[in-house]
Amino acid sequence: MRASKYLLATLKETPSDAEIISHQLMLRAGMIRRVAAGIYNWLPLGIRVVRKIEGIVREEMDRAGGQEILMPSVQPAELWKNSGRWEDYGPELLRLTDRHKRSFCLGPTHEEVVTMIVRSDIKSYRQLPLNLYQIQTKFRDEIRPRFGVMRGREFIMKDAYSFDVSREAMETAYEIMRVAYVKIFERLGLDARAVAADSGSIGGSHSHEFHVLANSGEDGIAICDDINFAANIETIAIAPSDVARATSDTPLTKVSTPNVHTIEELCSFLDVPTDKTVKTLVFEGEVTPIALVLRGDHELNGIKAEKIPGIKTPLQMSSASRIQQVCGCEPGSIGPLNLDIPVFVDHAAAQIVDFVCGANQVDHHLSNVNWGRDLSEPESVDLRNAVDGDPCPVSPDHNITIKRGIEVGHIFQLGTKYSESLDAQVRDDQGNTHPMFMGCYGIGITRIAAAAIEQNNDDGGIIWPESISPFQICIVPIGYHKSESVKKKCDELYDNLTRDGYEVLLDDRSERPGVMFASMDLIGIPHRVVIGERGLKSGAIEYRARSASESRDIPMENLYTDLTSILR
Amino acid sequence: MRASKYLLATLKETPSDAEIISHQLMLRAGMIRRVAAGIYNWLPLGIRVVRKIEGIVREEMDRAGGQEILMPSVQPAELWKNSGRWEDYGPELLRLTDRHKRSFCLGPTHEEVVTMIVRSDIKSYRQLPLNLYQIQTKFRDEIRPRFGVMRGREFIMKDAYSFDVSREAMETAYEIMRVAYVKIFERLGLDARAVAADSGSIGGSHSHEFHVLANSGEDGIAICDDINFAANIETIAIAPSDVARATSDTPLTKVSTPNVHTIEELCSFLDVPTDKTVKTLVFEGEVTPIALVLRGDHELNGIKAEKIPGIKTPLQMSSASRIQQVCGCEPGSIGPLNLDIPVFVDHAAAQIVDFVCGANQVDHHLSNVNWGRDLSEPESVDLRNAVDGDPCPVSPDHNITIKRGIEVGHIFQLGTKYSESLDAQVRDDQGNTHPMFMGCYGIGITRIAAAAIEQNNDDGGIIWPESISPFQICIVPIGYHKSESVKKKCDELYDNLTRDGYEVLLDDRSERPGVMFASMDLIGIPHRVVIGERGLKSGAIEYRARSASESRDIPMENLYTDLTSILR
Repeated sequence: MRASKYLLATLKETPSDAEIISHQLMLRAGMIRRVAAGIYNWLPLGIRVVRKIEGIVREEMDRAGGQEILMPSVQPAELWKNSGRWEDYGPELLRLTDRHKRSFCLGPTHEEVVTMIVRSDIKSYRQLPLNLYQIQTKFRDEIRPRFGVMRGREFIMKDAYSFDVSREAMETAYEIMRVAYVKIFERLGLDARAVAADSGSIGGSHSHEFHVLANSGEDGIAICDDINFAANIETIAIAPSDVARATSDTPLTKVSTPNVHTIEELCSFLDVPTDKTVKTLVFEGEVTPIALVLRGDHELNGIKAEKIPGIKTPLQMSSASRIQQVCGCEPGSIGPLNLDIPVFVDHAAAQIVDFVCGANQVDHHLSNVNWGRDLSEPESVDLRNAVDGDPCPVSPDHNITIKRGIEVGHIFQLGTKYSESLDAQVRDDQGNTHPMFMGCYGIGITRIAAAAIEQNNDDGGIIWPESISPFQICIVPIGYHKSESVKKKCDELYDNLTRDGYEVLLDDRSERPGVMFASMDLIGIPHRVVIGERGLKSGAIEYRARSASESRDIPMENLYTDLTSILR
Repeated sequence: MRASKYLLATLKETPSDAEIISHQLMLRAGMIRRVAAGIYNWLPLGIRVVRKIEGIVREEMDRAGGQEILMPSVQPAELWKNSGRWEDYGPELLRLTDRHKRSFCLGPTHEEVVTMIVRSDIKSYRQLPLNLYQIQTKFRDEIRPRFGVMRGREFIMKDAYSFDVSREAMETAYEIMRVAYVKIFERLGLDARAVAADSGSIGGSHSHEFHVLANSGEDGIAICDDINFAANIETIAIAPSDVARATSDTPLTKVSTPNVHTIEELCSFLDVPTDKTVKTLVFEGEVTPIALVLRGDHELNGIKAEKIPGIKTPLQMSSASRIQQVCGCEPGSIGPLNLDIPVFVDHAAAQIVDFVCGANQVDHHLSNVNWGRDLSEPESVDLRNAVDGDPCPVSPDHNITIKRGIEVGHIFQLGTKYSESLDAQVRDDQGNTHPMFMGCYGIGITRIAAAAIEQNNDDGGIIWPESISPFQICIVPIGYHKSESVKKKCDELYDNLTRDGYEVLLDDRSERPGVMFASMDLIGIPHRVVIGERGLKSGAIEYRARSASESRDIPMENLYTDLTSILR
């Protein structure tokens, strides 16, 4: 492609409404343009990336035995009423009415429709296993769409559905998909993890999320690469320490801490580390409020907290006035001593000695507090999120590391949830008829484009993984419109590479070299050659990998063979 | 693909609600399944065809300089209000409201959105010409969706939009697209014609429709292949004959024609050919009704009739009571003699002598009527549709033939209609700013699948053109599950062809040969080999092209080379 003929819609300024780096870079590189909240146009540079992602996903789905189908965006309400989701699904389900006043929705997912297919066309176990997938545009009416296509309303997904005669066969189908997904992310060139996950509202009993690792990720992922384990930090159970707690003779003291409001301020004021402090959080309970105590450096895990006996779900922090009423102080001053409400202490907080906590009195804290001495032995439970260095829950000899992840895929074992409600029965080899066992397997195609950028960028712009870059290589001429020899060499290289099937962007615009370099860096083409008169004379052509800090020279006589061996 | 693992959802019975052959065959072959009125699932066999059509269209669009983009299905109302189409577009535009009560529509077309892209990203003539296209799912809320995907509500289209700095450049862009479309239909293997067309409500001044020829087509197409001309019969102007009308001495007679109601009955009763009769049709006019007279074998052309001075538009036939009032008889008895309302006569009807017409009296006709003798010389105008053998309007030495066509593509020169209303300006090489000149170019991807079947089928089922067939070749074993040598030969041929990139369907189901033959014929695979023990023993393998009436033997030793040379 010649840049002069291409819609290379790069922007110099970072659009002010783009909060995250992928959103900023997709706008600046001219990959997308906003049409409405959460609804985007994909410009030529963007759709090339999407089509490559689709291509890899389609190939691996086919290889894993999937059969492509295509289901509609507009789905009749009756189907969703039959499955019960017309009522259960929230306002994310965009409902609409056609000219004949019939109710439809824009499909955010297709369990109902695909179950309708097998209900009519699958009768016997001989037709199973079956895996049907589609790559299709979905709509989810997010209340606050943001982060560009990362959390858009209209987006492209690959969704697959497996159908089996038994639970065991479903588990086999699920495992085939899990392996295919690992392969897909390898081929996409992304550092991703299959993360054991609670299954959400979609139903079913066993699921994995696939996360692309990136510092900007919304989810904390606990990883133990030694044993190939990864889980959402929220799901990691943390055992109590088997080491006995130390004892201390240092006397408890009350200290005045005026204008100290945060743990950080407290630690700095008293010069103690955060892991020598505890924080006390008060939540509404069925009878009285309940206090939860964690180490100052730990984060409460809401899922675990909701399992505390007598606590109200969903979790609801007590109001300042309620706390004043039951604890006799404002929320910032609470500590676990002399509280007249149930107190549950996280295992780690129960293990420390000489800690600092609130004094239940404004502008005061207690120092050198010790369990079993200054207050009773705590009721110790698992309350916190895992942190870096915690033992691996599967292999406690190893430690986990915590990374951030962007969820781009999710696979579920659905069991018979939909086949029962929608009556998709199959006859097994004994002649008995029962609901099929289903799995469902999603990948956010357009979301992957954004996640890839979150993982791969620098100050200059995007750094595309080779397999999903819009072009494989760019040629930047110095003096294309002035030097006949530069033009000739660039055109020749462009023609030869294009002829041999490589995807080349030749920047033949009348722009200064600095502008062209910046454009090519911004749009993230993995390989760049610079051809100017100086190089032609010296017989050395400048080459740089987008991910490399320095360029290097390739002798002119080896140029084509060296480049093609890099690109292959 | 092995048929035993494939969702080969063929049906024995023709579904009763399918009126046209393509709809019947797509259901029976297991290509599609109905989800709601005009909304379909594409099953594996169907989506393979769709993807192949998309592939050819995409390649030819790229080759013609198009750049792929992707615009959203859900489009904000504001854009449509700006272009004026929020009000102008009928109830086919499905309007909806999101959770924040903002108005949107499901895009039946994308002029507004694409114009928004160029408005923000194209400023200078140097960025033009530009051709942006997408392959995307559209929705049009047809009042009576029918004929399966031929007239569905949700469908896939390729729509392209060209942008140019001048009218001349737009015309060049249009011509490039016209040529690309001809190439696309050639590659699809379809007999299609570019048909000069009136441009419809979409606006603009010059357009062509692309029709796939098929006897079941909705539109009459006048074709003059000698000069590569085709036009909708409705648009063909027909000149008066330059031969003087003959005269006759045969006296006019009134004949009794009891129980004669149609032209056919009249001709049979009186034993006259239809081209010796005239029919008189009465339409409402601004002042009085107006009578239009055509030869009995000709069809009124509504577009031409609406140009008659004083006639009401849209055309409205006068009621029986109104005709009784002004002509003194019921509609079936009207003739042009002694009518007290304006009479316009088609050129051909004005040319005949000794004709038969209504007597303005129930159960009677007049015979041997002659213009200029029994009634005044007629006011002769062009009123009828063209018929087989009429002179070509471009090259009158040649005659046209009339075929039926299915419209699957439409290209328009839009001019500045949208760039004006949506303010998409460009600076020309003189530094002046003015609205861009646009063209738009649609192809109905899913409709092509149906049109291809309408054109290519027989009693056994579909006959796919090679380039869009879901599989290139099928292997039908006789005794796959009984004969080790049959299984071995079939598997070997399947493996080799698949390895070399051919798309093969091996029918390894436990079915009787007759069932397999019928399935493969029904789904229309262009090439078939039958491998059984008899053939293996005799050293001759049975091959049949789907379009051939007879199979022939290929010597075993040449099988692979012969087959691959057929498939290439």
